[in-house]
Amino acid sequence: MTATDQPRPLAIRKQDTLHRLTHDVDAWVSTAGLDGTPYLIPLSFLWTGEHLYLSTATTNPTARNLHENPRLQLTIGTVRDVVHVIGTTDDTQPTPAQAQAFATKAGFDPRPLPNYPFIRVTPTQIQAWREANELKDRTLMTNGTWQI
Amino acid sequence: MTATDQPRPLAIRKQDTLHRLTHDVDAWVSTAGLDGTPYLIPLSFLWTGEHLYLSTATTNPTARNLHENPRLQLTIGTVRDVVHVIGTTDDTQPTPAQAQAFATKAGFDPRPLPNYPFIRVTPTQIQAWREANELKDRTLMTNGTWQI
Repeated sequence: MTATDQPRPLAIRKQDTLHRLTHDVDAWVSTAGLDGTPYLIPLSFLWTGEHLYLSTATTNPTARNLHENPRLQLTIGTVRDVVHVIGTTDDTQPTPAQAQAFATKAGFDPRPLPNYPFIRVTPTQIQAWREANELKDRTLMTNGTWQI
Repeated sequence: MTATDQPRPLAIRKQDTLHRLTHDVDAWVSTAGLDGTPYLIPLSFLWTGEHLYLSTATTNPTARNLHENPRLQLTIGTVRDVVHVIGTTDDTQPTPAQAQAFATKAGFDPRPLPNYPFIRVTPTQIQAWREANELKDRTLMTNGTWQI
């Protein structure tokens, strides 16, 4: 990773991050079993302003991992324009309007499927960086609280 | 994830996968500690035709996770054009030519840095898919052996 442009100020990083959270469709979602087996898969998401909602089959490794170990890391963007989220998950389901918004944005509606519940992600840390020159000051949220 | 084009035949998927392995610069690398804490980060890589080499500081969570738990999943490409690799890691270092090739491709040379050894990845499974219509027949390598 090499530096190119000037690092973005924190306020711009937050603005760019909220834009990606609102408009990007898919995230890379990393979970692990309690035995430490990593699992990485792309999943569509909806950002509500406070949480992200994902949906995957209860039989898929992501859902099985989160059932026993409700911690994840996910990234949005590209390898050189990263939004990095650490979060915890629970079974709280979205409102009907949020579920519809997920289906519209993702082009995939899990609601009619018997084993596709939503997974709610509560971010605890959010970072944003592009290249090595932005590794400093990349933290936008700590302990669930925006720093700016 | 919705279907768009016709699914690619396996031979084309392998060709596309080898192209990405050879020409893409960065991968999403997912590891976990033995306590099941997931960790996801982009890292540059070199593909030798048999292994991938990564490099990150020994103090970074990726290196610390792999030291105690040498299993990873990594992806190359995009959320809608995925090359998905499951692999194991060890401390075997690249040849000088491979290390130079890594530095040239990554634009980052870890060799002068005191705590940036290479990490060698041996793939055990490789899959390639674009969207939902390619989830079938996505497996190109099983148990370290190309299926085609």
